[in-house]
Amino acid sequence: MRTESLNSTFAALADPTRRAILARLASGERSVLELAEPFDMSLPAVSKHLKVLERASLISRGRDAQWRPCRLDARPLKDVAEWVEHYKKFWTESFERLDVYLREIQKKEKRHGRKRKRH
Amino acid sequence: MRTESLNSTFAALADPTRRAILARLASGERSVLELAEPFDMSLPAVSKHLKVLERASLISRGRDAQWRPCRLDARPLKDVAEWVEHYKKFWTESFERLDVYLREIQKKEKRHGRKRKRH
Repeated sequence: MRTESLNSTFAALADPTRRAILARLASGERSVLELAEPFDMSLPAVSKHLKVLERASLISRGRDAQWRPCRLDARPLKDVAEWVEHYKKFWTESFERLDVYLREIQKKEKRHGRKRKRH
Repeated sequence: MRTESLNSTFAALADPTRRAILARLASGERSVLELAEPFDMSLPAVSKHLKVLERASLISRGRDAQWRPCRLDARPLKDVAEWVEHYKKFWTESFERLDVYLREIQKKEKRHGRKRKRH
């Protein structure tokens, strides 16, 4: 079940508009109209994105038929954080290797620089 | 540019086979044949997944035309970790609220239990 929910969480996050909607909801609940405002998008298009976020349990909607405010539900993001955490040592190693490589290049360039000055 | 790379990273991670491939590569580089082995999948299907992972820069492939081993590249996952970190306080709050709610329910049940015993 966690596999399935990770599938839908990652799929929901693959769209920049949906990530922007989550970022806006981080500052408090919003109506669909308020959410649509900063995007050059039709209301049905925004509603579609909201449905994807709702199915992924990343937002919940109020029950008031008139207003139905959207609210951030960050709990599925905890699974994302836990999943990605397993790979931390790998990106740390990659950046360390890059760092060693760049320092090697700098050293070589300094040595060449000194040689050039001597000549 | 980071937005675009987050799009392709999240899209690549939305598939359980692709996440399983990354998990296998965490223990070292593998050929396509070795990666295909645990999945009930054709080689072309596995190759398709590898292409998605490669385009998302989550794996790199060796240059040996015969073998072309796949290697994990976890660096894009650092961006995912940083992105998700912004929401940490929200899921912590959610779970705390759930915890308070569950404790309230337990208290109520205990009180009811005591009342029932008294009658």
